[in-house]
Parts: sequence; C-alpha cells; structure tokens
Amino acid sequence: MQFQRVLIIGSGLLGASLGLRLRMLGVEVFLEDNSPMACSLARDLGAGVIASKDEDIRPDLVIVAVPPDVTPRVVCETLERFDDAIVTDVASVKKRIAEGVNGHSQAHRYIGSHPMAGRERSGAIAADADLFEGRPWVVCAGPTVPPDTVLAIQQLALEVGAMPVMLEPAEHDRAVALVSHVPQLVSSLVAGTLRGASAKDLGLAGQGLRDVTRIASSDSALWTSIIAGNSRFIAPILEDIGKGALDLAAALRQGEENPGAPGVTVNVAQVIKRGNDGVDRIPGKHGGAPERYTHVFVLIPDKPGELGRLFSDIRDIGANVEDFSLEHSVSQQVGRGEISVIPSAAKFLASGLEERGWQVFIEGGEQ
Amino acid sequence: MQFQRVLIIGSGLLGASLGLRLRMLGVEVFLEDNSPMACSLARDLGAGVIASKDEDIRPDLVIVAVPPDVTPRVVCETLERFDDAIVTDVASVKKRIAEGVNGHSQAHRYIGSHPMAGRERSGAIAADADLFEGRPWVVCAGPTVPPDTVLAIQQLALEVGAMPVMLEPAEHDRAVALVSHVPQLVSSLVAGTLRGASAKDLGLAGQGLRDVTRIASSDSALWTSIIAGNSRFIAPILEDIGKGALDLAAALRQGEENPGAPGVTVNVAQVIKRGNDGVDRIPGKHGGAPERYTHVFVLIPDKPGELGRLFSDIRDIGANVEDFSLEHSVSQQVGRGEISVIPSAAKFLASGLEERGWQVFIEGGEQ
Repeated sequence: MQFQRVLIIGSGLLGASLGLRLRMLGVEVFLEDNSPMACSLARDLGAGVIASKDEDIRPDLVIVAVPPDVTPRVVCETLERFDDAIVTDVASVKKRIAEGVNGHSQAHRYIGSHPMAGRERSGAIAADADLFEGRPWVVCAGPTVPPDTVLAIQQLALEVGAMPVMLEPAEHDRAVALVSHVPQLVSSLVAGTLRGASAKDLGLAGQGLRDVTRIASSDSALWTSIIAGNSRFIAPILEDIGKGALDLAAALRQGEENPGAPGVTVNVAQVIKRGNDGVDRIPGKHGGAPERYTHVFVLIPDKPGELGRLFSDIRDIGANVEDFSLEHSVSQQVGRGEISVIPSAAKFLASGLEERGWQVFIEGGEQ
Repeated sequence: MQFQRVLIIGSGLLGASLGLRLRMLGVEVFLEDNSPMACSLARDLGAGVIASKDEDIRPDLVIVAVPPDVTPRVVCETLERFDDAIVTDVASVKKRIAEGVNGHSQAHRYIGSHPMAGRERSGAIAADADLFEGRPWVVCAGPTVPPDTVLAIQQLALEVGAMPVMLEPAEHDRAVALVSHVPQLVSSLVAGTLRGASAKDLGLAGQGLRDVTRIASSDSALWTSIIAGNSRFIAPILEDIGKGALDLAAALRQGEENPGAPGVTVNVAQVIKRGNDGVDRIPGKHGGAPERYTHVFVLIPDKPGELGRLFSDIRDIGANVEDFSLEHSVSQQVGRGEISVIPSAAKFLASGLEERGWQVFIEGGEQ
C-alpha cells in the first residue's frame, strides 16, 4: 500500500478500528481526538500513537473520522494544515461533505469514503480490526481528483478487507437513505411504541419484534448527526412510509365502523404484498442474487454445551452450513435452531442429526 | 391429557402442526379442510386421518384452525354440530371471536386460544410438531366457561410444549397489536420502499435492513385476515408511528431549508432515544428480564466446515453459548460470528479460540 504514515482524526468506532487494522499492516498510525480519554483508549487498544502537538508528523494520508456534521470543516482544515497529504473521511453522508469541500483550492487531494461498517455499539471501546472485512467501502471522487489518488484509496479499502464501490455522492446518499437511514428511524419509531407497554404484554414478544427493533439500540448522538446530514433523501421515503401507515390506519378505522368494507382487506393485502416484493429484492450473502436454501430445524435444549454438541455433530456429518440462526423461546428452556443448507444436503443432514438423537424437521415436511 | 379424540378443522400451519404433535402424544386426530389437497397433505405428513363425512366421529375436543375472519362462524357451527365437545380456536385475534360466540347458548363449551407460534412460511407444508415448544399459548375464557374446561385447555397447551397465559380477549388483542401486528405492517412498509431500488443500491444493504424486513416475507392472505380482525387496536399505534414519521420528515425538510435549525436534531435525537428506551424493555430469552451478555466476535471464512469447526472448538473449550448470530458480509467470502456468553466466560473463550487459530475480538476491546 502506498500509505506509510497515516493520521487518523477522531478515535470513535471507525477511527480506532482503522487504526487497529492499519497497525496490523505495519503502517505508522497517529491518532488525534478532541477527547484525550478517547484518544488514550484507542492508543491502549493498539490503534496507533497519540500525535504530539509539537512534532511535524508529515502524514501521507489523513483519515477524518469525526461525526458527519463537523466533517467538512475538519477536512478543509486538514487540507490547509498538510501540504501534500491525501485526505479522506468515513462519514455516512457524502453529498454535503463534497459540497463543503469541492470549492477548496486543494479539493483534488480529498476523496470521500464511506466504509459501510458499523455496529449498534459505538466508540473506540467497540473497535475491531476486522470491522471492515467483506463490507462495501463507497468511494466518492470529486471532478479534480487524479486517477492515481482514486486508486490509492481503493487500495486502502482492499487492504483493510473491504470492497471498494465507486458512487457519486448523491447516488450514495440516496442509496443509504433507503437501505440504512430510513430502516434505522422506522426501527426506532416501532421500538418507541413499547415504552409504555406492560411486562405482561411484552412477554408475548417473539422473534419478529426482536428483529424489527434490533437496530433501535443504536447510538443517539451519532445517528442524529447522520440523519440530519442526509435529510434531503430521507424525508421523501419517510413520508412514503408515514403516509402508508396513516392510510392503512384510516382504512382500518373505516373497516371498524363499516365491517366487511372491501377497502380494508385490499389496502392491507397490498401493503403486505408490496413488502413481499421488496424483501425478495434484497441480495443474499456475498452480494449475489437472493438465494434459496433449505432450512433444517433442530430443537436445542438450553443446557451447557448443547449448541456445541449440535455443531460438532453437524461437522461429523460433513454438511456445509450456509447460515444458522437460533430462535429463543419465551418462558421455556429450549431454543430452535434453523440450519440453512443447499437443498440437496438437507435430507442427509437431517437423518444424520436424527441418528445422533436430535429432534429435526426439514422445511417442506419431508422428514 | 383428557382429550382422546380431537377434530382439527383447517389444515394450515397451526392445524397441521397441532395434529403432528397430538399424534405423537397418542391422541386420535381427525382432519377437515375445505381444500382436499391441504387435508391430504396434512394426513400424508402424519397429522391425522381425514374425517369421513358419514362417520360419527364424536370428538371430545374440536380445534378450529381457520383464518380469523371465518373463525366465529365455524366455532358457532361446531358448537351446534357436536353436543358435548369442547371447542377452541387458534386465531391471532380474540375479541371479535369472543363477541361472535359469547351470545351462543353453548358458549360455555368454547375457549379462545392463541398459540403464539408462527413462521414466515405458511401451510401444512411448513408444519412442525415442535412449533409450539416454549411459546406462549394465550387462553381466553368467557364468563360462562367452567374452571375444569379452562384447566383442560391449559393442559392441552402444556402437552404440546407451550406455556399457557390467561388473558382477557381485549388485553390479548391490545398486546399482540403492539408486539406483533404493528411490527409486521411496518416491516412490510419498509420492505415496500425497496421495490423500485436498483441492484447497486441494494448491494449496500447490511444486516440492519435484513433484520428490519425479515418478517415482511410473511403470507399476505393470512396477515390480511389477522390485521382486519384487530383493526381497533392496530389503528392507533399505526397512527402514532405514521405521525411520528411525518413529523420527523417535516423537521428534516425544515432543516434542509434552514440548516442548523435546532428542531431537526432535537426531533431526531428524541426518536432514536425513545427507541433505545423501548427496545431495552423487551424481555430476554425465556421471558426473563432483559439480560446482558458479553459478545465475542469471530471471523469465519466461508468454506465448508468452518462453522462446524468453530462450534466444535467452542465445545472443546467448554464455554456455554447463550446466543449465536452469524453476520454475513456482502461481496466477500467471510462471515462474522457473534458469540454471547456470560461476562466471566468471555476472556476464557476468546483465548481458547485464539489458541486454536481463530481471529477473535471481545466486545469492550480487552483482547
């Protein structure tokens, strides 16, 4: 990789994770953060050394890993502070930042990045050198950036394990509004309705509610900055969903007053059907076309080592597991494992598990 | 169990699954369904025998497992058709059914049930004798039902592996609107926004979008009937969410026109914060208080047997896994496993895995 001295401004989840990874690659990493504590934590984790105020560190790359709202200012300051360093950022919005930087005389040294890696948890404390492994890394290059600089950032993405994807800033912002920002807000809105619920009501919660609301535990300060920075693309989609919810509620109230009115069922069926169509379009793992595996269900007693015994048995049987999910039961000591395998392997896996004493059921009923 | 001859009307997912389980318990099960094909399929899966029109089957229990909209009618017909059978149903709405049955002279033989078991897939083809294992089974008894009858249905729930929960019909409907019906509709609304998206945009989708939209692949006909039957409790929650989405969109548009207006950030932060509070109230597995485990992250190469090798190693190390989830990476051959263990076991597990060659990271950074 062409970068040997990297300054990372901001020691949050992304900054610290990049530091950890770059250190593993033998790159010299300097850290800066407004918060001395965050900076020390990142250093103690092994993400780099704290940049001294007096030292002339002469970085060849500066990664600005601060919240989206302050990113344009910090990028411009950085372009002025270092004469020849390439500057990138990691913010999850790109158009506003491009607008804030593109007029700058040194804009040809700035390339926008968005490594699409994140977690519900934030801060250096959650940092992970493998955070970027297999994730898309969006690269947005302005009109004056030389091809070599673009290549260097693409290579940086590859070196930390990510997949570079070239996008225009507006394309990027529109896409993430749809696949990330709006789902985040809606998950929060649904979770918000649970605040006043009784423990008895919440005891009826199943896996569906848990899935829909998982990302609602995300960090409030970070997401506020992200959402505010992409309001232009988020607002229309949120309006679509808001109007859809109110239309549906109106149809339901109408049906309440006038039972049997056809409007209700048509409206509800359409919402569900459109959802079916939309979810079918989400690509499967590794970014390929949506795939269909056969699902083998196994009942897993909740006692020490059972999950380990299951996987050890699967290994002995020799089946390649494409996906595995564990569904917890409420109020009882048992879990349901769903093992996804290619269809031709399902029967073989199921009979092998049965021989080893597991309660097994293949999707489709052919046990 | 006091029931020895059970008639199941309706051979869908729930009817067929109950048939399978009751047959395992040695109960004589008769099946009826408007669709001869669905009925034969359930029989072929082992859920019972097809009830002959001529035979006087004299059931001691009839389980009405038809869609919610036709359930009240079928329950009343069944009370008239059999002089002394106890009748229950499995519909996911309870108040409308109670209202439709309570006036009947034989209402003392009807008890409403809602086994809270379901899947995105439907029909006898997805049936599973273990479907009810560990799930809540809501029991709604009308004012004229003798205690012995209530006890018999509670025992039925326990025999099929479920946990009986006594609720008033309105209490039940309000709770499931909140924890099941509204999340379903909102998941469908979010998934619906993806219909027109490009493959490139959808390539940026991460685990968050997949989780929020997983239940959007549910069966449209069944859910239309469920939603229409609980409109009274769903409408106000849906309005809350719809208004919340529109308010937020309005604040975002205002911020777009007037950058830096404080309304935007306050509004967004409040939505995220309320979501944090709500999601924290969802109970952990087995219906206990929300639990906090330590998460150990492992990088899993996508080649045959790796997941099996991981679990076999975990077993050798001797750690008890509380939860496991696999996060797929887009565009690259690697997955991230998140292993949840009690905090005191995390370090032990992580060092054991590292010794065995895994790339491991403990949440909190103490690697």
